[in-house]
Amino acid sequence: MPSTQSMSPLTTAPFSVRRQQIEALRDQFTGRTTSYPRADGTIGPRTYLDSAASNLRFRGAEAVVEDAMQHYANTHSHLHHGARIMTEAYAQAHDAVLQFVGAPDDYTAIFCGTGVTGGLNRMARVLAAQHPERDVAITTLMEHHANDLPHRKHLRKVVHVPLQVDPDGNAGRVDMTALRAAIHEHGDRLNYVAVTAASNVTGIANPVHAIAEAAHDVGALCVVDAAQSAAHRPIRITGDAPGEALDVMCLSGHKIYAPGSPGLIVARKALFDNHEPEVVGGGIVEFVDAKRYDVTSALPDREEAGTPNLPGSLLLGATLRILQRVGMDAIEADEQALTQYAMSALNEIDGLTIYGSHRLEVAERIGVITLNLHDLPHGLVTAALNDYFGIAVRNECFCAQPFVRQLLGIADEQGIAPTSCTDTCGPRTQPGMVRLSFGLYNTRADVDTAVKALRDLAARPDWYRERYRPVDDGSGDWVHTTFQAPASDTFDLNAAADQWLAAHAPVPDTADA
Amino acid sequence: MPSTQSMSPLTTAPFSVRRQQIEALRDQFTGRTTSYPRADGTIGPRTYLDSAASNLRFRGAEAVVEDAMQHYANTHSHLHHGARIMTEAYAQAHDAVLQFVGAPDDYTAIFCGTGVTGGLNRMARVLAAQHPERDVAITTLMEHHANDLPHRKHLRKVVHVPLQVDPDGNAGRVDMTALRAAIHEHGDRLNYVAVTAASNVTGIANPVHAIAEAAHDVGALCVVDAAQSAAHRPIRITGDAPGEALDVMCLSGHKIYAPGSPGLIVARKALFDNHEPEVVGGGIVEFVDAKRYDVTSALPDREEAGTPNLPGSLLLGATLRILQRVGMDAIEADEQALTQYAMSALNEIDGLTIYGSHRLEVAERIGVITLNLHDLPHGLVTAALNDYFGIAVRNECFCAQPFVRQLLGIADEQGIAPTSCTDTCGPRTQPGMVRLSFGLYNTRADVDTAVKALRDLAARPDWYRERYRPVDDGSGDWVHTTFQAPASDTFDLNAAADQWLAAHAPVPDTADA
Repeated sequence: MPSTQSMSPLTTAPFSVRRQQIEALRDQFTGRTTSYPRADGTIGPRTYLDSAASNLRFRGAEAVVEDAMQHYANTHSHLHHGARIMTEAYAQAHDAVLQFVGAPDDYTAIFCGTGVTGGLNRMARVLAAQHPERDVAITTLMEHHANDLPHRKHLRKVVHVPLQVDPDGNAGRVDMTALRAAIHEHGDRLNYVAVTAASNVTGIANPVHAIAEAAHDVGALCVVDAAQSAAHRPIRITGDAPGEALDVMCLSGHKIYAPGSPGLIVARKALFDNHEPEVVGGGIVEFVDAKRYDVTSALPDREEAGTPNLPGSLLLGATLRILQRVGMDAIEADEQALTQYAMSALNEIDGLTIYGSHRLEVAERIGVITLNLHDLPHGLVTAALNDYFGIAVRNECFCAQPFVRQLLGIADEQGIAPTSCTDTCGPRTQPGMVRLSFGLYNTRADVDTAVKALRDLAARPDWYRERYRPVDDGSGDWVHTTFQAPASDTFDLNAAADQWLAAHAPVPDTADA
Repeated sequence: MPSTQSMSPLTTAPFSVRRQQIEALRDQFTGRTTSYPRADGTIGPRTYLDSAASNLRFRGAEAVVEDAMQHYANTHSHLHHGARIMTEAYAQAHDAVLQFVGAPDDYTAIFCGTGVTGGLNRMARVLAAQHPERDVAITTLMEHHANDLPHRKHLRKVVHVPLQVDPDGNAGRVDMTALRAAIHEHGDRLNYVAVTAASNVTGIANPVHAIAEAAHDVGALCVVDAAQSAAHRPIRITGDAPGEALDVMCLSGHKIYAPGSPGLIVARKALFDNHEPEVVGGGIVEFVDAKRYDVTSALPDREEAGTPNLPGSLLLGATLRILQRVGMDAIEADEQALTQYAMSALNEIDGLTIYGSHRLEVAERIGVITLNLHDLPHGLVTAALNDYFGIAVRNECFCAQPFVRQLLGIADEQGIAPTSCTDTCGPRTQPGMVRLSFGLYNTRADVDTAVKALRDLAARPDWYRERYRPVDDGSGDWVHTTFQAPASDTFDLNAAADQWLAAHAPVPDTADA
């Protein structure tokens, strides 16, 4: 199972031992089993199957940050203990990123934005400005909006390459023949190919190194969106051959068990040569007077203007360090086993469709499974999974509308929606799917809970339909007719802040006059 | 002391009681008294006087976020408990911001970037694009780079208005006569006036509402950088007259006791009308197919593409809520008293210069005091304060090079540095100052510690000079010749992560083979 490419220099223990470490870590995520009221009057723990939207936070990294915060200060100084400690820890966080993706010395890691959105917007802007004569970008029909709209905004033309279809007629990874044809069609007008490492809808992975090699054939770059992939399988900047190295990789901290952390750009340093930074301010300049300013040539400094999100960066750095110790090869194997277990069980439910190729041997898939029940709308299924079973899943379009419509058969093969779409996308029929997705805290028991619940929904659609009504606000949401669990009954930011203050700095009764 | 303008609707207790609440809160900041080794062989707690760079984190808000994280999930859904709770809490965080600055309904609060750097870059880009015919911005000579370089990047011309000089010859706030003249000179070519609410070098505050009124006279806007001010004195979007309302205010979460939180833009919604967002991705669109995308008109949604920094936003929201409960009027009074106490004591030290006007009655000043000792370089003073006294202060130019050079008399009155500056700014003579700055955790005892230390440095400069040598790297840093306290002796990110893993998921000895 462990391949050479996936071995991190930090994974010193044998593979089998590292698989056991995962078992020990499953409980170490905040909010994994929080209890909520259910529609049947009981209260029970949640089953969190919404990791493709955002992962739960890893306690190991939280503990490290808690230590670090004892020394908190701004960076950019070495003269007092706190500033020195934070400056060095921040550098370690950068190093942890570079090591995580196996980046050589000619790459830099830049903390930027929150998910990949900030990084992909930044890089689209930079690459378009660096080579205005290359005004075409290629992406695929399986991208979420973050790896599509920035290219449309900054390049004259964006080509959406279709996907391979497996012998069952299901969508797989990007169609490499079509991709190569598009690359050669645009040749020296092509700036870059931007592709997801794994889809946030089907979970299916793309051969990013082969794509990089194809892009390099015409002197173009390869930008990889690793948001969905990074926490789930090994991913490296370099490939087996020199031409296969990715030029840019963007990662999303909140999808790597570190909500609250920044997003990341890992990129060849040379891409920023002679480019005035898109964001300017303190920390990027060597000299400023009222007339001129000289930007430092140091990276990542010149691309990280201002004070960074230090706690978040350290959180992500510590998380990546521990993931590397356990090894992404072991984590991938764990998730693969769980995903296959889930696919097998879900496939046995009558009236349940799983989207994307099921042929794991030809379409590698991370722990993302998107489905619909034939007799019930996705919004109702999602609400009922929560209300009756405590299962947290996501529904609708996952910020990947073109791909979801295509999988549902309501867009043509170029990803163009019918003009009637505004009608067919009304509140009761808002297209969408239900997505189950796994993190390393998930177990077979979680899958069993979901399978049992979906089986019940599939078996008794009328019983559930009678208990729900659509929310006519265009969202595709459904709500229970009698069971309500307002957020503020469980957590209210203002009330929590007021309570803390009353407990720690009470106002005497007489003062209320 | 409390003025009508500074009263928050949340400050229900009497002023005197709220001043007492501050006493109860001083201990509630993480890392306030962390101990470090000192050059004399002892170990002692730090005195944190580096709040103008970044504040320590408020435990009250930490506790609220810890509660919230039990429910963590991504926003953008109402169908499972966690998503619903986080979506509503995130909206509450926005509301807390709007309430903190007293923003009317036609304003929006946008989480953006980390400090004010992201927000000011965003707004410079937006405002320049919205009114390309207005291609001039006015700012002042007292700005940090974040409120200067973005305007230079996006506007054709930036005018730096000089400062008032008090009867002692010291710099005060912006020269309103010169500012009004510049505004009228540029008239309908003027896009906006960007001004800091308080300097991060002298701490001196500007009359932002009068500036807004002057900008509005010619149809221009007023952008206020409240990074340095927001945690220290009341600040409101609206003024006493309708024309005095600020159009844009940027705030920095890490300077409001919430390191790890995002930066903020509070702005008139109308400023974004018909403007394609600068950052595009998920969450900002109503419809996307491969051919077109339709951006929502909802704010802040259209300006917050992608997954937000939820823990950070909630941290800031809870902090602002509690600050409003205590009342910025009480917090300002507390800090004013401490600042006056410090100014008086520091003024009695021979050979110590405090920069900027000392006349608190004409130049309102937040808790920022910048100084030099005549006989010792700023880098040596800063190192010695840390090494011998455990005092954390910042030195050099505070990302405000033009202002610092001007105060030091090494730039002309237009803020232009002499051409010889590259030479005079060499490692041993790198210009700079030493900055003491206060947060609400600071006490008279902290001031006494600093005054005693500075008095000793001023009295025995040769003793200290013998014990330090310059670091010849252009930084202006000085290091002790024998005492060293490497950061990694105290905190090492990798070691902390490894130790946590070894404790929670140990590898059996036999597995190391």
